[in-house]
Amino acid sequence: MAAAVRDEVAAEVADLVAHGVIPGLTVVLVGDDAASATYVGAKEKASRAAGMAGETIRLPGSTTQADLLAVVEGLNADPAVHGILVQMPLPKQIDPDTVIRHIRPDKDVDGFHPVNVGKLLIGHTDGFVSCTPAGVIELLLRSGVETRGAEVVVVGRSNIVGKPMAALLMQARVGGDATVTVCHSRTRNLVAHTRRADILIAAIGQAEMITGDMIKPGAVVIDVGMNTKPDPTTAKGTRLCGDVHFASAVDVASKITPVPGAWGR
Amino acid sequence: MAAAVRDEVAAEVADLVAHGVIPGLTVVLVGDDAASATYVGAKEKASRAAGMAGETIRLPGSTTQADLLAVVEGLNADPAVHGILVQMPLPKQIDPDTVIRHIRPDKDVDGFHPVNVGKLLIGHTDGFVSCTPAGVIELLLRSGVETRGAEVVVVGRSNIVGKPMAALLMQARVGGDATVTVCHSRTRNLVAHTRRADILIAAIGQAEMITGDMIKPGAVVIDVGMNTKPDPTTAKGTRLCGDVHFASAVDVASKITPVPGAWGR
Repeated sequence: MAAAVRDEVAAEVADLVAHGVIPGLTVVLVGDDAASATYVGAKEKASRAAGMAGETIRLPGSTTQADLLAVVEGLNADPAVHGILVQMPLPKQIDPDTVIRHIRPDKDVDGFHPVNVGKLLIGHTDGFVSCTPAGVIELLLRSGVETRGAEVVVVGRSNIVGKPMAALLMQARVGGDATVTVCHSRTRNLVAHTRRADILIAAIGQAEMITGDMIKPGAVVIDVGMNTKPDPTTAKGTRLCGDVHFASAVDVASKITPVPGAWGR
Repeated sequence: MAAAVRDEVAAEVADLVAHGVIPGLTVVLVGDDAASATYVGAKEKASRAAGMAGETIRLPGSTTQADLLAVVEGLNADPAVHGILVQMPLPKQIDPDTVIRHIRPDKDVDGFHPVNVGKLLIGHTDGFVSCTPAGVIELLLRSGVETRGAEVVVVGRSNIVGKPMAALLMQARVGGDATVTVCHSRTRNLVAHTRRADILIAAIGQAEMITGDMIKPGAVVIDVGMNTKPDPTTAKGTRLCGDVHFASAVDVASKITPVPGAWGR
């Protein structure tokens, strides 16, 4: 499915290039966080493979907020740059919200600027949608999973996944029209909610927290968690895992996304 | 409670005036819809009573979109105008979203501009929040109703009430932290949801649709519906009613808002 999406994007890019526009994506990476470097590398590779132009600007971890804002403003003004991605998390001396608000909304391909978040909740489709929720909708649509009237439970209320995910799924349109519940750390009876979900979306950031007994038989389970767990049987001593305990969930769910393999790296 | 809020606002206005700033609210009314005229009159009266400056600009129903946008731009640029309210609904020749997007976000006291809606969902508190959801939170807080961990069911997904209401209630803060479900016309088993709600918020626009048997005993019921029903016993032949059937709900709920009397006119 991912390969099909990549092919479709490449075809759209080729069409734009034929019309004289080379889509340009610039990624800004501050500091040398290993996970961020991996993500940025993957973005760079994928956009190049799709025929886009663009570069990655690597700044030292000591970069000041003023310096980063100046870089963003330069990219805002550059007509060859159509998309700007400032990789999160940023070093402590930089306020991420200030940086996000400085990105031109029409270049904010991460969809984190308040204008784009607002358009998402209102239901307008002329903004950018944050990538994981957008990908989940795409996955559900391409898998033939009906969201209309479905009971969807989103576990997690982050600004990157939980909240935009819920906002997308409640819109009155194809890929929406679900009855959406958002659960989080303050939810009293989490199991009662997860057990009634036709579509369960786990975005909590807690390793293997959702076990098979918490899932309704036949449910569609989307696990966007990406956690590291100690595992002495591996060379590294750790392994990647999701928010769902895959081994106990796989026979209960009708469809389930593996971790790793579906999202992230 | 409303009187207390009005007094607090008047005190804040007096403080601003003492510092040389006279808060100015300008309301724009296009056409002669009777309900809109009533709302606008109430807003004008309340803001004057609180000591604010401001006027109502009344435009004919034949006003073009370009003319209305020019009025909005004049108000955007006027330093004496701090808040702009364009009364909805607008005549058919005017696209409401275009008008909303033209209002300066920092004067958009209705909180309908995408920037303000986005801040609301993100959880930032430096934007304007649409008035009914903001009022519901205020009512819950002042009534001592705990939202943290509460099961809240919002029936209705409008951009004016349902969606911003759900967004506010899921934030990680006082007056939020609820487990929120949004139900709507595509919801399969509405009664199962309404019956498990500790706090039930009805914003559907269907006269007396929520009956007492759909409410959990002891629930807090907020009815923001404002509908007109035939009633031959009245002089007008109609009466105002909410989305909740008050007579059957009042003995089941622990607290309930009456219609009319709490919201709207």
